[in-house]
Amino acid sequence: MTPDPGTAAPAVRRVAIVGLGLMGGSLARALKRLPDPPWISAAESSEHARDRALAAGVADRMCRLSSEAVRDCELAVYATAPDVTLSLLEQDREAWGPGTVVTDLASVKAPILERMHRLAETDRYVGSHPMVGDHRSGFEASRGNLYEDARVWMVQAGAVAAACERVAGFWRQLGARPAWMDADEHDELMAWVSHAPQLVANALAAALLERGIPSEQLGPGGRDATRLAASAPDLWTEILAANARRVVPVLDSVVKELAWLRDALDRGDLEGVRARMERTRAWREGV
Amino acid sequence: MTPDPGTAAPAVRRVAIVGLGLMGGSLARALKRLPDPPWISAAESSEHARDRALAAGVADRMCRLSSEAVRDCELAVYATAPDVTLSLLEQDREAWGPGTVVTDLASVKAPILERMHRLAETDRYVGSHPMVGDHRSGFEASRGNLYEDARVWMVQAGAVAAACERVAGFWRQLGARPAWMDADEHDELMAWVSHAPQLVANALAAALLERGIPSEQLGPGGRDATRLAASAPDLWTEILAANARRVVPVLDSVVKELAWLRDALDRGDLEGVRARMERTRAWREGV
Repeated sequence: MTPDPGTAAPAVRRVAIVGLGLMGGSLARALKRLPDPPWISAAESSEHARDRALAAGVADRMCRLSSEAVRDCELAVYATAPDVTLSLLEQDREAWGPGTVVTDLASVKAPILERMHRLAETDRYVGSHPMVGDHRSGFEASRGNLYEDARVWMVQAGAVAAACERVAGFWRQLGARPAWMDADEHDELMAWVSHAPQLVANALAAALLERGIPSEQLGPGGRDATRLAASAPDLWTEILAANARRVVPVLDSVVKELAWLRDALDRGDLEGVRARMERTRAWREGV
Repeated sequence: MTPDPGTAAPAVRRVAIVGLGLMGGSLARALKRLPDPPWISAAESSEHARDRALAAGVADRMCRLSSEAVRDCELAVYATAPDVTLSLLEQDREAWGPGTVVTDLASVKAPILERMHRLAETDRYVGSHPMVGDHRSGFEASRGNLYEDARVWMVQAGAVAAACERVAGFWRQLGARPAWMDADEHDELMAWVSHAPQLVANALAAALLERGIPSEQLGPGGRDATRLAASAPDLWTEILAANARRVVPVLDSVVKELAWLRDALDRGDLEGVRARMERTRAWREGV
């Protein structure tokens, strides 16, 4: 699970990016800012996003279909929602060249690694999950510095060394910090640090909404705590569906903690509340 | 509850600020940046903060006791935690001059208004709650632009018109946006938009902490959702204690919403999850 990430590999000269949303669009922008940028072949289903990306000069070839975009590329990056990625990987298989390395940017990795295993394509597959994001989405929200200094979790199971080196080097050239992790461990960690926080923000926002309180009434703290409630529902429903069995127990833990605080406040156990806040403060200030 | 805030009042020339933490320190800095800054008399119990504030040149008179600081001042601003403010108001009463207007910055207003009512001092009292804040605290975190464009809720019950005009004008000169609200309505609103979000962030952080996940593993979304967990425990325990009967039902609502999302995910009701996310997204994008 931890190939040596230190070996230098020649830079990728021909990159396909499938999906020009926040993640794919930002990737294209970042690549085009390199001193010696690669040739970029992009696929995007939205005509509006295709026009915007061509106007921004971030793609050298623009396709509607991913099977067209990945032809003749050394690296194919799938920057689509998890279930779209699963379909496209199966559908594009014939379009990949013998040396094409395949990666994706989804925040759930085990189902995609399983699919590539079933397709007998694990030798060319290295999954990527950059720990970046924004409640905004689409090409409009993309920016060239999104991946700078970002942790990128990489997963693989049987990838050839050259594929591992290429993907790790690909991220390093953009200023990101690639590191290897087991796919199941990754998905478990994301349930805690990413997927549950998303739903907690939705639940808090839903309570305020039900009460009829406009979001304009939020102060800076309430705005932080509910920011994720503005995230894209289609993408997030897919992410959550793909990791539901790991997310549900995390939500049980959060409900338990919140009910404990509620009861402590109700019975006037202020020392208990203070002690819990001291612990979470020390934990959070570690960031 | 809604005195006319439009009448101009002469600017306050002698201001006492009790407590030079984030709120009081930022207030002193903001006043000293005015074209014609007032004379500032400050009280602060921490020697370190007194030294820092004198070095920053934000106070013309520095006292240890608030009863000394408020003498000869036209406006006394209590920028201390709620229970400290309650004690000091009672203790400093003899030190106020006949024309001294009194305000405070606490985020819970009904208990303070009640205390001033019991002291028969409501004619000079206008409570203020600026909707600003930070998980950082203390004079080190103070800054001169904290109140710029901030909503400041003001409460009163029997204040003379001159006191209302002075406090409203005081905030407007700093670029803040004062508005009147009933004290009970204010405290109910804060339970929803400020106090419950604080505890939700604590609960989420506590769950991750119990699981043994370091906060360094958080991505940008998880960092937003847990930022408030770094807030000052002493201050927040007091705020929550003062508003506990209103905060507990809000936490019940959040637990209910989170449990609903948990169950929907568990039974595979992805359309239900998506619909809930669509609603909270539309609500949150109103900010």
